[in-house]
Amino acid sequence: MPTGEIEIKVKSAQLLNTCKKLPFEIKDFVKKTEALRLQYRYLDLRSFQMQYNLRLRSRMVMKMREYLCNLHGFVDIETPTLFKRTPGGAKEFVIPSREPGKFYCLPQSPQQFKQLLMVGGLDRYFQVARCYRDEGSRPDRQPEFTQIDIEMSFVDQIGIQSLIEGLLQYSWPSDKDPVVVPFPSMTFAEALASYGTDKPDTRFGMKIVDISDVFRNTKVGFLQDALSKPQGTVKAICISEGAKYLKRKDIESLRKLAADHFNQEVLPVFPKANRNWNSPVAKSIMEEQRSELIRLMEIQEDGVVLLTAGEHRKACSVLGKLRLECADLLEARGLVLRDPALFSFLWVVDFPLFLPKEENPGELESAHHPFTAPHPSDIHLLHTEPKQVRSQHYDLVLNGNEIGGGSIRIHDAELQRYILATLLKEDVKLLSHLLQALDFGAPPHGGIALGLDRLICLVTGAPSIRDVIAFPKSFRGHDLMSNAPDSLPPEELKPYHIQVSWPADSEAEKSSLNQPYHPES
Amino acid sequence: MPTGEIEIKVKSAQLLNTCKKLPFEIKDFVKKTEALRLQYRYLDLRSFQMQYNLRLRSRMVMKMREYLCNLHGFVDIETPTLFKRTPGGAKEFVIPSREPGKFYCLPQSPQQFKQLLMVGGLDRYFQVARCYRDEGSRPDRQPEFTQIDIEMSFVDQIGIQSLIEGLLQYSWPSDKDPVVVPFPSMTFAEALASYGTDKPDTRFGMKIVDISDVFRNTKVGFLQDALSKPQGTVKAICISEGAKYLKRKDIESLRKLAADHFNQEVLPVFPKANRNWNSPVAKSIMEEQRSELIRLMEIQEDGVVLLTAGEHRKACSVLGKLRLECADLLEARGLVLRDPALFSFLWVVDFPLFLPKEENPGELESAHHPFTAPHPSDIHLLHTEPKQVRSQHYDLVLNGNEIGGGSIRIHDAELQRYILATLLKEDVKLLSHLLQALDFGAPPHGGIALGLDRLICLVTGAPSIRDVIAFPKSFRGHDLMSNAPDSLPPEELKPYHIQVSWPADSEAEKSSLNQPYHPES
Repeated sequence: MPTGEIEIKVKSAQLLNTCKKLPFEIKDFVKKTEALRLQYRYLDLRSFQMQYNLRLRSRMVMKMREYLCNLHGFVDIETPTLFKRTPGGAKEFVIPSREPGKFYCLPQSPQQFKQLLMVGGLDRYFQVARCYRDEGSRPDRQPEFTQIDIEMSFVDQIGIQSLIEGLLQYSWPSDKDPVVVPFPSMTFAEALASYGTDKPDTRFGMKIVDISDVFRNTKVGFLQDALSKPQGTVKAICISEGAKYLKRKDIESLRKLAADHFNQEVLPVFPKANRNWNSPVAKSIMEEQRSELIRLMEIQEDGVVLLTAGEHRKACSVLGKLRLECADLLEARGLVLRDPALFSFLWVVDFPLFLPKEENPGELESAHHPFTAPHPSDIHLLHTEPKQVRSQHYDLVLNGNEIGGGSIRIHDAELQRYILATLLKEDVKLLSHLLQALDFGAPPHGGIALGLDRLICLVTGAPSIRDVIAFPKSFRGHDLMSNAPDSLPPEELKPYHIQVSWPADSEAEKSSLNQPYHPES
Repeated sequence: MPTGEIEIKVKSAQLLNTCKKLPFEIKDFVKKTEALRLQYRYLDLRSFQMQYNLRLRSRMVMKMREYLCNLHGFVDIETPTLFKRTPGGAKEFVIPSREPGKFYCLPQSPQQFKQLLMVGGLDRYFQVARCYRDEGSRPDRQPEFTQIDIEMSFVDQIGIQSLIEGLLQYSWPSDKDPVVVPFPSMTFAEALASYGTDKPDTRFGMKIVDISDVFRNTKVGFLQDALSKPQGTVKAICISEGAKYLKRKDIESLRKLAADHFNQEVLPVFPKANRNWNSPVAKSIMEEQRSELIRLMEIQEDGVVLLTAGEHRKACSVLGKLRLECADLLEARGLVLRDPALFSFLWVVDFPLFLPKEENPGELESAHHPFTAPHPSDIHLLHTEPKQVRSQHYDLVLNGNEIGGGSIRIHDAELQRYILATLLKEDVKLLSHLLQALDFGAPPHGGIALGLDRLICLVTGAPSIRDVIAFPKSFRGHDLMSNAPDSLPPEELKPYHIQVSWPADSEAEKSSLNQPYHPES
C-alpha cells in the first residue's frame, strides 16, 4: 500500500456513512456472474480492473484530443443525434416527436454531418461521437457506442492513414509497448487469399496457400470435383506442430465446423507424421503430391495440413475460420501464437465498391456506404463493370479486429447522383440536402471513424467491451441495474401520438424476450 | 489578407469542383432570414461568425478538459443516453425497444449515473454530456443540448465553486478580459429582494428597495391596501436619468407590462423632476415621503422611481422584470448599462429545498431535484417545517443568465428515502437502484453542470444559442436542412410494436404544426 508507512494518530473521527453487507466481495479473485456485476454495477466499478479500464480510457481519449486539437488544428464539433432516417437505415432507433406520425432517428454515425462540415469550410473536424445501432440481441455489441470520428478536406488515403498512425502512437498508454508506424497495408484481395477474412490477425502465420496445381491429377473425389469447375481451387493451411498438440477429436471438431457452418469438406493431411487417422482419403494422395505440398507450404515435422476445395472466396473463408480455431486449440494446449503484449495493426485497402445484394444478387449495394469514392484507377469501369470497381475505403485492423474504417468520399454531385440513383437505385430525395451541398463547391474530402469501445477493449485486454464501458447494456440491450427499457403508462405516450401494438399471441412478449442467440458474423 | 503579398505563378491547375449559384452571398452584411440560414446550414457555416463561434467553442472545451483531466485528476466517463424514465421526467423523449411496450428514455442529465459513479469510487467524474429535453416549442431552447457535467466525492459547496472558478478562468478565451475570481456570492433571498429574480444581472444597479416604512401613513389607495395586509410591502426601483431618457409611452408600456403579466399596479414617481405626467396619484405623495424616498434611494436629478406594492415575492418579481425592461429601453436610447465586454459572474446560494406544488400548493416538490442535500443548519426543520429548509444547491449566473447549477447531494440512504417517500410522495421503486447504492457506503459528494451552449453564446456575444451549434433545430424542433423529424412507413414501426394514433380531427395535424408561441419563463 502506498500509504503503508504512514501512521495516523486519530484525535477525532466522524462517521460519514455506513455500509450494508455487500452482495459480493470486491476482490478480483472472487468469481461472480456478469449479470450480478451489471446489477450492482456501482460496486463492480470499485474493482481494480474497472478502475484501471475506465481511467486508461479517459487518459487515452484525452491524449487523442490533444493530438487532434492542439497539435493538428482539428475542431471538435458536436453533431445532432436527433436526426432523420437515412436510406437503408433499418437499424436506427426511432423517436416519436410531438407531431403525429413524425419521427426522429438516432443516427448510426455522423456521416452526413461530417461531410456537410467539409462543405461548410470546417476543414478538420473531429468528435468523440455517440452512435446508435439497433441490432436486437448481439453478444458484445452495444445499442449505443462511441467512435472517434474524423473528417478532413483536401486529403488522400495516405493522409488519413498517417494521421491515424500518429494519433495512436501519441495516445498509446505508456505502460504498453510503443506503437510502431507506419502500419503495414494489405489489399482486401490479399487479406482474403491469405487469411480468409477482411480483418486478418497478423500476429501469427498459418496463411492460406493455393495448392490447386499440386492436385491437378488427384484421385481424391471432392478435390477432383472442385478442380473440374472453372472457378475451382484447392486451398490449405499448415498447422505447425499440429500433430504434436492437436488430438483426433480436435481435428474432428474442425471438420465438423467446416461442414456445419460452411458446408465444406475439409481434409486433414499429415505429410511428415505417419498418422493418417481420420483421413482415409489422404491415403489416395500420391507421394509426389505429398512432397510438393511439403515444399510449397514449408511443412516441418509434426505439421498438419488442412485442405479444402471449392470456389476461391468460399474456400478461403472456411480456412480463415479454421485458422483462428486452430490458434484457440493450440493456445488451449499451452502454445503461444498470439502474444498478448503484441499489438499488430494493419490497413486493409482496395475493397470492392459494391457487392451483390444478398436478397437479390442481380442488384448492387454499397460494400460500405454510398458516399465512398471509387478508386481513381477504376472510375472508367463504373459505367461498364461496376462490380469490378475498387473503392477508396480503408479499414484499420488490430489483432484481427476491425477497429476503424473510413474512405475518401465522393465530392462530385453528379457522380454521387449516378451512384445513388442509377447504380444503387436509392430514393435520392432523402439525401437531397447532401447532394445539393456537393453542388456548392464541396472540397475533396475523406475521413475515418475508430470504434473507441473495441479499441480500449483490445488495449486493456478486457474480455468484453462491457468491461470498458461504465454502464453497459446486457447483450439483450437491458440495463440490469435500473431495469431499462421499462414499461410506460399509455398517457405518457399520448403526447407522442403513438400506442403500443401488443402482439396478438399472448406468448409473443415472452418469445421476444427470448430471442435466439446470434453469433457474431 | 494574410497571403496578400505572395504572388503565385501557376504552371498547371486542376479544377477540383464547381459551384452552382449560391442561394445567398456569404458576407456578413448580406441579410438573410434565419430559416434560410438553417436550410443551407452548410453554407452558413462558412460565415466568419459561425467559424469564429464553433472554433472558439472547440478551443474553450479543450481547455476545460485540460484543466479537469490533466490538472485536477478528473476522469472523463461516458454515461448511457438510452435510459429509463425518471420520476417526474415528463419532458423525456421516449424510444420504443423491440420488446412490446418497453421504452428507453433519453435522460435530461446524467444525474443518477454521476452519483452512482461516486458510489463506484470514481471520485472525480466529468463529461461533456449530451442531454435531452422535450419541451415542445420554445424559442432559444434545443431538444438536445450539452452540459459540462461534474461530480466529486468528499467535497463541499466551496470546493465545487473554487473548481468552477478555476475552470472558467483557465479556459477563458484570451481575446476577452480575464475572469476575476472568486466570484461574488448572494443568497437566493437577497437575489429576490434586490433583483426580483434568482439570476440577477449584476452588471448594473437599479436594485429593488423596500420602502414600506416610507409609506406607512400614505393616502395612496393601493399602497394603503397593500400595507394593511400582514405580508404587505411597498417596493421600488430608481431609474437614474429616467426622466431624461424615457418617454411617456415608455412608462406607459412598463405599467401595462406589470398589469398584464403580473396583475400589479406600478406607480411612476419623479421625486426631483417636476414632471408627474402619468401619475396623478403621485400628487398624493407628501413632501416628507418624497424627501425620505430621495434619501433612501439616493435619487439624483432626473431619477424616476417605479413603485409597486404587495406581497414581497410578487412585488420583487414585477420590479425585477421592469428593471430589465428599463435597461433595454435606456440602451435603446443610447445609454450603456450593460457593457458587452463585461462578464459578471455570480453564485446564488441558499435556495429553498422545496417549493409548493404548482397544481396543489399543499404538497411539496423539489425546488431543483430530489437528490439535493438540505442545508446543514436546517436539517432539524425537515421533520417540522420542511418548507423552511434551505438546500445546498448553488446556481452560477453570468450577466443575468443561469449558466450552471449544482448541489451537494444526499449520501444517506435513510434521509433520501424520507425525502422521496414521505415528503415528496414519489414512488421509490423507480429509484431503488440509487437508494440501494447509497446503502453501500456512498461517500459524501456533490457536483455541478454548466450549460455549454448558453455559456458559449454569452462568451461569443451571439444573438442565439443556435449560433454556437453547428446544426441546431428550429424553435419548433425541426432540422430545416434535412427535414427532421420525418414520416416513417408503418412497416418500419413494426419491429418496435408501436403504431401512430392519428388525431381524430383531420385538422389536428395542421394545428399541432402551428403550436402557439410560448415565451420563455
